[in-house]
Order: sequence, then C-alpha cells, then structure tokens
Amino acid sequence: MSNKFFTHGLIQVYTGNGKGKTTAALGLAIRSLGPGAKVHIIFFMKGKFPYGECEILSKLPGLSFQVFGHEHLIDPNNVKDDERQQAREALKASKLAIQSSKYDLVILDEINVASAWKLIDVKDVIELISNKPLTVEVVLTGRYADQRIIDKADLVTNMDEIKHPYRKGIEARKGIEY
Amino acid sequence: MSNKFFTHGLIQVYTGNGKGKTTAALGLAIRSLGPGAKVHIIFFMKGKFPYGECEILSKLPGLSFQVFGHEHLIDPNNVKDDERQQAREALKASKLAIQSSKYDLVILDEINVASAWKLIDVKDVIELISNKPLTVEVVLTGRYADQRIIDKADLVTNMDEIKHPYRKGIEARKGIEY
Repeated sequence: MSNKFFTHGLIQVYTGNGKGKTTAALGLAIRSLGPGAKVHIIFFMKGKFPYGECEILSKLPGLSFQVFGHEHLIDPNNVKDDERQQAREALKASKLAIQSSKYDLVILDEINVASAWKLIDVKDVIELISNKPLTVEVVLTGRYADQRIIDKADLVTNMDEIKHPYRKGIEARKGIEY
Repeated sequence: MSNKFFTHGLIQVYTGNGKGKTTAALGLAIRSLGPGAKVHIIFFMKGKFPYGECEILSKLPGLSFQVFGHEHLIDPNNVKDDERQQAREALKASKLAIQSSKYDLVILDEINVASAWKLIDVKDVIELISNKPLTVEVVLTGRYADQRIIDKADLVTNMDEIKHPYRKGIEARKGIEY
C-alpha cells in the first residue's frame, strides 16, 4: 500500500508526431521516484522499448513495469488476433495496476496507438481512466490520442516536430543545383 | 573514454510551453544508458530540479550530473550578478563536458531559458553546439529557444500545452453560475 503521493492525481496525455512522448513519461517516473512515489509502467508495444532499456528501469527502486505486444511492427490495416490479444492483456493489467492501491503513478505507454489502431476499444480506455482512484496519476502516451481521451484528460501535451530550416534549405538547394 | 555510442550525434532541442521538456531529456538519458551510453546532465536552474530527484539520478550507472543556479526563481527583468555568474559556470561546465570525450550524450537543461533571459549570451550557446564533436549528442531544453539555436539544431520538438476543453467548460459555467 503506497502512501498516497498525490492528493489529486491527474490524467495526463502525451501525444503528437514529435519526439519525447515515451521519454517524457519515463522522466516523469524518475522525478516522482525521487520524492518517494511508487510507479508502474505498462508498455503496450514491446517493440518500442527493447530489452536493454528495460534493464536500466529494473535498477530503479520504486519502479516496476510490464511489457506486452510483439517485437515486430503492427500493420494497422491488418491487425492479427494475437496482437489484439496482447493489447487486451495490457489493458487488463492497466486496470489491475490502477485499482491496486499499490501505485501512485501508472504510465500506459503507447495506449493511444493501441486504441487508434483498434487493438483495444477506446471506450474501454475511457472507462479505465474515468474509474481511476482520485490519488492515482495516470499518464497515456502515443500519437493519435482519441478526442474522447483528450476530453477526459486534465493535462494534454502535444509534441510537434519542427522541421529543421537549415537542413531543409540545404536540401532545397541540392534539388535546384544538381 | 567512451566507446562512441553515436556515429553522428545530433543537436536536439525541446522547447515550448507544454509539459515534458526536462522529463523528455531525462527519459532520453534512461533510454541511452540501457544500451551503454555515457550521459552527463548540466542543470542550469537548480530550482527546477530539487535534491530528492537528483538522488535517484545518482543511482543510475553511466549517468553523472552537475547542478548550477539557485533555489529561488529568477526575475528576468532584474537578473542578479550571482545568477549570471552561476549560468556562466554552467556554460563553462557544458563546454568541458561536451569536449571531454567522456560522454556520448550531454543534456543542457534549461539552457534555452538562461539564454533567453540573457544570463548567458546566445552566441556562446551557438558556439558551444557548433563546436561539438561529431559523436556527441547534445540536448538543449527550456522554453523560449532562440531562433538561432533552432536553426542550428537537427531535431526540434515543440511541446504545446493543449487546454482541457471539459475543464474549461466547467470553469466557464462556474463563472456564469456563481
């Protein structure tokens, strides 16, 4: 049983096509662990977070995680049964973690993509976060966050990739000059 | 001497008014440490990263950091000499770290703010990143990234805070009903 680190845990979303969604959530975990929060991470898409990186997470006291999904990339137009099954297992684990009273911060990594690609039903995600205990903070990462998830969230950050003007300039010149 | 983790280290910038700039950099550190990178972080603004949070970073093998600045908030319209001095020390430490051949990834946390508030000269920041060794990746975080820094960077991510429509609705109603 954790010591109720947050008096009012928020629902946070990190979405958009830029870098830093998963890493922002990981960094948030680090920041919360320092003052003593208990953190649990559910990785919905294994491929995005290889073994070597998980090893370093294992060394952090107060942090635990579960990894679901496959190494391979999912084709959103041709989702396989076992891929759907893995995402459902991840969703079940998320519900258990959020309701367990063991964690102050629960990070659902790439759940937005899993829901956008219909591996899981967005309604189940809404239900999941709507029923979270007051003191639990939940973070949902991944592109394509559904508007209904955004509506439900307290804090939504969109990561936008800004193209590099200098590099673009160089490429443009190449296109003209060669 | 590190084993040249990156063949071509990028210059990355995380800026914008949203959440997740420092945490994205921290998460990036975690991800790089896993496969064996050596990471050094320079915190330009101590107040943003309290002691308890630093403790957890100390536990990560392959990661080191230095903290500069003061606990108190800086008033950008009334910058004190010792605040400027601290930022200059941080800049000096940044240069040493980047040129040391000891680190694969060097994170300059809140350097964009330090430069926007003229605690340090943006030209020195440009010089710092322009002279980085090819194999060193440098990450600059903080709002108000100068256009010249953005121009110089390979990868720029803007974190935008999206307001919460539901909560805004509630607030508006409160304003009307009470």
